[in-house]
Amino acid sequence: MDIGILGTGMVGQALGRKLVQGGHRVCLGSRTADNPTAAAWARGRGPNATHGTFAEAARFGHLLFNCTAGVASLEALRRAGEENLRGKVLIDVANPLDFSHGLPPTLAFCNTDSLGEQIQRAHPEVRVVKALNTMNCEVMVDPARVPGEHHVFLSGNDAGAKRTVATLLSDAFGWPPQRILDLGDISTARGPEMLLPLWVRLWSALGTPDINFQVAGVSVRTAAAIPQPISTPVSGG
Amino acid sequence: MDIGILGTGMVGQALGRKLVQGGHRVCLGSRTADNPTAAAWARGRGPNATHGTFAEAARFGHLLFNCTAGVASLEALRRAGEENLRGKVLIDVANPLDFSHGLPPTLAFCNTDSLGEQIQRAHPEVRVVKALNTMNCEVMVDPARVPGEHHVFLSGNDAGAKRTVATLLSDAFGWPPQRILDLGDISTARGPEMLLPLWVRLWSALGTPDINFQVAGVSVRTAAAIPQPISTPVSGG
Repeated sequence: MDIGILGTGMVGQALGRKLVQGGHRVCLGSRTADNPTAAAWARGRGPNATHGTFAEAARFGHLLFNCTAGVASLEALRRAGEENLRGKVLIDVANPLDFSHGLPPTLAFCNTDSLGEQIQRAHPEVRVVKALNTMNCEVMVDPARVPGEHHVFLSGNDAGAKRTVATLLSDAFGWPPQRILDLGDISTARGPEMLLPLWVRLWSALGTPDINFQVAGVSVRTAAAIPQPISTPVSGG
Repeated sequence: MDIGILGTGMVGQALGRKLVQGGHRVCLGSRTADNPTAAAWARGRGPNATHGTFAEAARFGHLLFNCTAGVASLEALRRAGEENLRGKVLIDVANPLDFSHGLPPTLAFCNTDSLGEQIQRAHPEVRVVKALNTMNCEVMVDPARVPGEHHVFLSGNDAGAKRTVATLLSDAFGWPPQRILDLGDISTARGPEMLLPLWVRLWSALGTPDINFQVAGVSVRTAAAIPQPISTPVSGG
């Protein structure tokens, strides 16, 4: 599949690396066409790894990842251009971290709003799915790095988009379907975004980012009680 | 041990029930001395179960639980009286839930503050430990109700108080020591309090409150990396 990744930080690079390894074509987007980080990422990865502006990456991808800094995401998506975003599935991986209060970061907004909701409101024709923001980027693309039955959460208004994302998480990153939990509509993104303050403190207390959250009690649920289902193929692949 | 529980809701009643069953003496406190819910709770539980005002319960307990509604906790503690609180360990179980925006509730404050911190600031001579607020009250007192290696978090400024609380959680409620995670000082209470929006949505999505969070990756840590230690006896018992 052709995938556009907005953002050239650690998260965008890790997702892009894994997707190219899996045979997908990836365009890494940033503010400028000649971003040296993006160019260095693409170099040596073969013809499936390219880079460009936010607009070029968005135009390229049938499916998009938002991996920009959360407080800059709305501006990045504005630069990507509505004509390049319309109708597409956008996986929002970002957290609106605010470092102005010092460390650890707070959230720029939360509780009565979320970045996922802000993006969905600003781009009503984009099918936004919040996912993967609750863990380190190395765990996102290799969940077996953390032992145990830990989970990844999905929030979004479009059931088809969530199925597409779930299939990608399984096929490209190795998430077993039963460990992908559908929380509900995009307003449920508040929960996973508000996990960040605990995640940061656990990282500090335990001295490693190789952790993830598991919802204990889920594994013994009957299948009927587990949010459904994750079997539709990724479209446009 | 003599334990004062502030608040007569489901949480206070569940904790009090389990503590009395374990041989502790419990006074359940509320705004009024003749609270019918508290009286009904105490009835038939024998001489170890009593009830009274917030001040009477606070005076009675060598160790205290705050199980009042989070948005009313500071007022309840003011009524309890500084002379009855001073120097004591207070386990803050409450969440500052705000129902004024409808369901699900939001938090009355979070992100740059927490109820745990507000209580500690208002009562600098009380040894506040945030704990147990991340789960249903039946799971608090019977963690085996949820299968798996799920966790309970501690936040507090006083290491001795956290050891006291950890010992109580193990001895009275059955929490294995390795599943009690010390996050750090009282400001780390923001993380567990901000779990609530996710917890509420999971309850809704999964249809059961018999869930809890597990930090996957912790069980394989070396003992040295796991926050230490939990072996000091509960004082005043």
